[in-house]
Amino acid sequence: MPRVTVHRKAHFNAAHRLFRPDWSDEKNFKVFGKCNNPNYHGHNYELIVSITGEINPKTGYVYDLGKLRELIKTEVEEELDHKNLNLDVKEFENLNPTAENICVVIYEKLRLHISKEMDLKITLYETPRNFVSYSGE
Amino acid sequence: MPRVTVHRKAHFNAAHRLFRPDWSDEKNFKVFGKCNNPNYHGHNYELIVSITGEINPKTGYVYDLGKLRELIKTEVEEELDHKNLNLDVKEFENLNPTAENICVVIYEKLRLHISKEMDLKITLYETPRNFVSYSGE
Amino acid sequence: MPRVTVHRKAHFNAAHRLFRPDWSDEKNFKVFGKCNNPNYHGHNYELIVSITGEINPKTGYVYDLGKLRELIKTEVEEELDHKNLNLDVKEFENLNPTAENICVVIYEKLRLHISKEMDLKITLYETPRNFVSYSGE
Amino acid sequence: MPRVTVHRKAHFNAAHRLFRPDWSDEKNFKVFGKCNNPNYHGHNYELIVSITGEINPKTGYVYDLGKLRELIKTEVEEELDHKNLNLDVKEFENLNPTAENICVVIYEKLRLHISKEMDLKITLYETPRNFVSYSGE
Amino acid sequence: MPRVTVHRKAHFNAAHRLFRPDWSDEKNFKVFGKCNNPNYHGHNYELIVSITGEINPKTGYVYDLGKLRELIKTEVEEELDHKNLNLDVKEFENLNPTAENICVVIYEKLRLHISKEMDLKITLYETPRNFVSYSGE
Amino acid sequence: MPRVTVHRKAHFNAAHRLFRPDWSDEKNFKVFGKCNNPNYHGHNYELIVSITGEINPKTGYVYDLGKLRELIKTEVEEELDHKNLNLDVKEFENLNPTAENICVVIYEKLRLHISKEMDLKITLYETPRNFVSYSGE
Repeated sequence: MPRVTVHRKAHFNAAHRLFRPDWSDEKNFKVFGKCNNPNYHGHNYELIVSITGEINPKTGYVYDLGKLRELIKTEVEEELDHKNLNLDVKEFENLNPTAENICVVIYEKLRLHISKEMDLKITLYETPRNFVSYSGE
Repeated sequence: MPRVTVHRKAHFNAAHRLFRPDWSDEKNFKVFGKCNNPNYHGHNYELIVSITGEINPKTGYVYDLGKLRELIKTEVEEELDHKNLNLDVKEFENLNPTAENICVVIYEKLRLHISKEMDLKITLYETPRNFVSYSGE
Repeated sequence: MPRVTVHRKAHFNAAHRLFRPDWSDEKNFKVFGKCNNPNYHGHNYELIVSITGEINPKTGYVYDLGKLRELIKTEVEEELDHKNLNLDVKEFENLNPTAENICVVIYEKLRLHISKEMDLKITLYETPRNFVSYSGE
Repeated sequence: MPRVTVHRKAHFNAAHRLFRPDWSDEKNFKVFGKCNNPNYHGHNYELIVSITGEINPKTGYVYDLGKLRELIKTEVEEELDHKNLNLDVKEFENLNPTAENICVVIYEKLRLHISKEMDLKITLYETPRNFVSYSGE
Repeated sequence: MPRVTVHRKAHFNAAHRLFRPDWSDEKNFKVFGKCNNPNYHGHNYELIVSITGEINPKTGYVYDLGKLRELIKTEVEEELDHKNLNLDVKEFENLNPTAENICVVIYEKLRLHISKEMDLKITLYETPRNFVSYSGE
Repeated sequence: MPRVTVHRKAHFNAAHRLFRPDWSDEKNFKVFGKCNNPNYHGHNYELIVSITGEINPKTGYVYDLGKLRELIKTEVEEELDHKNLNLDVKEFENLNPTAENICVVIYEKLRLHISKEMDLKITLYETPRNFVSYSGE
């Protein structure tokens, strides 16, 4: 059967701050600039989850997009939406919540629920002009 | 010469219904949900056709995008635009018109007209949040 | 208090067909073109509901956008999403489902639930290039 | 001379929290839901500033959009971008930073710099689906 | 009958240069900056034509959007698309092709073809961040 | 460390003309159509620069997007924005400024500044419907 990629867009918004606790304020500001604001800032994160696999000949689906919407809701939106990533989300207790690291965290969470025969790719927009993508390489 | 991908966006809108005639109404509704409405529903399908090949050193083109626009018009828009995919389009007489299957059908139709040295990829948006892509694998 | 407009975007998709039962097939086709296809076609309708009123000094809200989302869900999405407008929706039993008429129908349905001191405007995209708006004039 | 509106889009991102210090936690949560998270959440705010006035017959401009870009940068972006609206911005010390109130604050700040013969309108997107607008009424 | 606005989006691209022949090079550069480049620069202009009128009870249309598409094609696209506004378009022989002036020119051209009982508004995007609108005031 | 792609969007606008000086006017017009207008036309070019590399464990960044913004500004925007590509840009003195060739030129300019361990991909939108991409193959 043809191997097709299905994509689902989703949305969450969150506050965060970029910094390392083991660095001085000066170094944190030099590296992270205004993203280092100790009172936090925030973003509307736009997410695209892409799953590649063979079309199921019975249904014509690669992966039911309604089920994918529910999976994203449970695993991503309920964990990250309207949260402070630094303070409210355990994965970032000791991990700087850069777009790159958020993207990898979402990949790892969803990878557990997607069959091994399928490929997974995560694209995460932090702003309309800055975005990242990760496919487990 | 450098190998570049050229992309052309296009649009068509159509009605469809997801179901299998060999399944009961209950099973069809369980699998396809409200997409199974026997009176049909519909979408604005947004299409991206992507062709990869070497730049022609004479023209600076990989593939004339004006000619690609015409090819999409003849092969895709005239066949699918303002149609009922289940009732009006022969490729879906015995094939469930899921986004995945529509994407593969468009790929197969266009592949016949694109030189073998060039790669082809089809991306099809069924809604702004649900889309699929296929490159012949 | 300042008079501010709050806007909420929503989405539904549906099949429809433009025609008048009291006209001949020829006249219907002449006036409505391919929108007259007897087997229906369809669209992703994008909706913007805009409510203008004074800011409530206690909450800082004009109208709670979470409540507006629920109102749109109940009054518009559950009635129109994944439906055939001609066959499944009672408002169009005797009304041609042009974008203009759909827009007025949605306005009338929501107007009943919005306080008289507030203004209401409906914007409805039938395709990314064709849209209509109505504010009760 | 014709009276034309010129529009300029801009962007800032910020953290905020909706709450009233004179309300109980229960009431705050009941009214503001997850927007009440005490650790803050955040948004990419998209801003449109619209100025209406007569075309200057010498330049063909209503208002030099390069100067408007600089005005927005000084008055809005430098004050709000990468900030915590509740903690870092004096206008919200005693004002709940709802989208409505942020929109009015931006209007008042820019109104001081725009000639009385010109009309001003502010449109502020808090998310791609929720936005507000204000023109000083 | 309800008074509804119908909107149609269109596109053209063109080269232009902002300058006044009766000003010195220094003054032209001071006022128009890099838009004054004597070799021209260019834009993808996105156009929205909005017509307000009563719904025709026979058709359910305010103005047939297919006919509006053709009118825009004849009056705007064929005149401006792939042109140098300063050199190829007679309306700008003695008029600086700012976004404001282009918008008024398009309004005047289309106004001749739209019935007096209908209102007309033109919105013209020069870039995704800079746009103008005019409704004949 | 995970290998992630970071993307940055940018913008420039320019005039250009497609033609070969060694071809007759007839042949130039036949091949390049209205893009051959001797007085030039123009576009808003939207650019996406994508860099793939390992996350730096100290910063959580693959490539500082603020530095990428500056690199794009220096290498691309200052060279191409508000320019006539044929007349003002040395790379196109003897190279037809098709979207494909512009994309390769931008790739070559940026490739010099990006470490060999990182992959680079350029996507260039000439219009919202026509775009090209190149990754050095």
